[in-house]
Amino acid sequence: MTEQENIKTTNIGTLGKNALLQRLTQDFEVHNESTHIGLGDDASAVGSGQKKSVVGTAMMVEGIHFDMTYTPLQHLGYKVVALAMAKVVAMNALPRQIMVNMAVSSRYSVEALEELFAGIRRICKRYDTDLAGCDICSSMSGLTISVTAIGETEKESITRCDGAKVHDLLCASGDFGSAYAGLLILEREKATFKANPNFQPDFASHEYVLERFLKPEPRTDIVKWLAENSIVPTSMTNVADGLADAAMRLCKESHCGCEIYEERIPIDYGTSHVCSDFGTNMLPVSLALNGGMDNELLFSIKQSDYEKIKGCPNIAIVGHITEQNRGAIMVTPQNTAIELTSQGWNPSVPSNE
Amino acid sequence: MTEQENIKTTNIGTLGKNALLQRLTQDFEVHNESTHIGLGDDASAVGSGQKKSVVGTAMMVEGIHFDMTYTPLQHLGYKVVALAMAKVVAMNALPRQIMVNMAVSSRYSVEALEELFAGIRRICKRYDTDLAGCDICSSMSGLTISVTAIGETEKESITRCDGAKVHDLLCASGDFGSAYAGLLILEREKATFKANPNFQPDFASHEYVLERFLKPEPRTDIVKWLAENSIVPTSMTNVADGLADAAMRLCKESHCGCEIYEERIPIDYGTSHVCSDFGTNMLPVSLALNGGMDNELLFSIKQSDYEKIKGCPNIAIVGHITEQNRGAIMVTPQNTAIELTSQGWNPSVPSNE
Repeated sequence: MTEQENIKTTNIGTLGKNALLQRLTQDFEVHNESTHIGLGDDASAVGSGQKKSVVGTAMMVEGIHFDMTYTPLQHLGYKVVALAMAKVVAMNALPRQIMVNMAVSSRYSVEALEELFAGIRRICKRYDTDLAGCDICSSMSGLTISVTAIGETEKESITRCDGAKVHDLLCASGDFGSAYAGLLILEREKATFKANPNFQPDFASHEYVLERFLKPEPRTDIVKWLAENSIVPTSMTNVADGLADAAMRLCKESHCGCEIYEERIPIDYGTSHVCSDFGTNMLPVSLALNGGMDNELLFSIKQSDYEKIKGCPNIAIVGHITEQNRGAIMVTPQNTAIELTSQGWNPSVPSNE
Repeated sequence: MTEQENIKTTNIGTLGKNALLQRLTQDFEVHNESTHIGLGDDASAVGSGQKKSVVGTAMMVEGIHFDMTYTPLQHLGYKVVALAMAKVVAMNALPRQIMVNMAVSSRYSVEALEELFAGIRRICKRYDTDLAGCDICSSMSGLTISVTAIGETEKESITRCDGAKVHDLLCASGDFGSAYAGLLILEREKATFKANPNFQPDFASHEYVLERFLKPEPRTDIVKWLAENSIVPTSMTNVADGLADAAMRLCKESHCGCEIYEERIPIDYGTSHVCSDFGTNMLPVSLALNGGMDNELLFSIKQSDYEKIKGCPNIAIVGHITEQNRGAIMVTPQNTAIELTSQGWNPSVPSNE
């Protein structure tokens, strides 16, 4: 009864996520002037007036993005909203409303959902954001949550990911690799617990990386600081799938290259600590480049803004923008240039993406 | 390792969907003036200016809202967008952008997703709407699609579901029960096919009801007609879960009652035909009141707008608004008053909700 039989099929994993999205959306035309920023950026910016609504979405699926064995429901509610807010923040806007849609299997109780919503309420309160819509439906298995976050900002302040220019400085908020380090710890303790159910998981001294994974924050503080210091970045993007992926995306969209200096990449002591726990083969810089869920910002600014930004404790200048033919590279302390590569997407394996 | 053990739990099915949503969202405060319309309506309306962004969402889950045995992927793409657009339309606004988020299991091929997107492109083109964002992630099983639809309209034109007043006329677009009738036919043919795989499904003479279920339309034509005729409804809501549910919701939010005249409820001949096919116990009016997915509009207008609306072929005046203590009732041709009741929500059973 289906229409799909007898058609040559391509596995969705073969293309990679970005190429797949490109292929699915390539034939869409833009019909409306009010579509100020559409496909290809972290969020959309829409509206006919001087102020634009900035709309970003995030979806989290049980078994893919979270494991109920070690995810407190309050943290989950907080996190999925943080991820949607981060999309709005990556356009240099502040989130003001969220809308939540859930598919829930019957094994979740009312009390469990109340826990989830306690987390959603907590992040809404912290970031002065309103829950402006909520819907629920059934699910065959597990929990899927989709969040739409909405902000509003002046047209001129909106920062796309395609505006970086040669010689611009490349800046980053926060630190990188720590969320993935947190996931590694949780997975290790889960494996040990499975082997021996009497085992008490030991999270001591890993509090920071665990919090980075379980309860990330949208960097609204950076958006506010930039506005207070009259800096509009030339480009900006959300770091969700590792610093390398974000840098490559920014370079691709802006038709430029970049040089990132390895020793300038902010890496927390906690991340290095996890790496040394796991053995010598795991390098903190690999986690920073290729780990996911950091929920930080990567952005470029004009060189003339250097004096303003150099003193900001929450922003690191990690490199600069180059000509496109130079590619996206990392320069090691030994002055070796390493081309950045993005991790692929394997849709048949649960992942952090 | 979870925090949920040893807590008294309540099955989510015991509360009913509306009561559950009410319980989960009751403690949220509103922090922003730009949240013009928030929780409790079909969509949200946000923004600080005279024009508001109207944002609605829809989510469809495989095995719950669609069955891949009989759902062509083009139709599925079309339908999920239509459902999100219908939320914007129910606020008396026209959709202008959509954003799509999908969780996809690896059994879907690139070609299958291209089919899905052909349907999304088709409805975008038909309704002059832009795809302004698209993301994809993995799923453990099946396909979940979440769509955010965005429109923009003058603050004064936005129609909430809580503005109905006593003596207002109650109006409805389209016809009711036909989408559910389409689902009944599809389920019947599927059951026969399962019993005998050589069986050829017979859809002849049921084209209309099948299209109503598989490929609903957002009623943008009604929004345009109302604007052209300078009518701003006093209240409006999307009919997604049957006419009874929509009428009861409108009455509850507006603190009023309503009388609907049974013989005025628009029911297509195709719906009656399905009912007679299925036997004498199935009444077309039951499908109209309690079937789902009609994707039509129920709205109230001032009596003074009667002359303007009476000639519109796509709008039926089905009743009027009464005092709250009269309740929400249907009056039969024999002049019997029957209290409207809403179907419950059973989250452990796949449903049309």
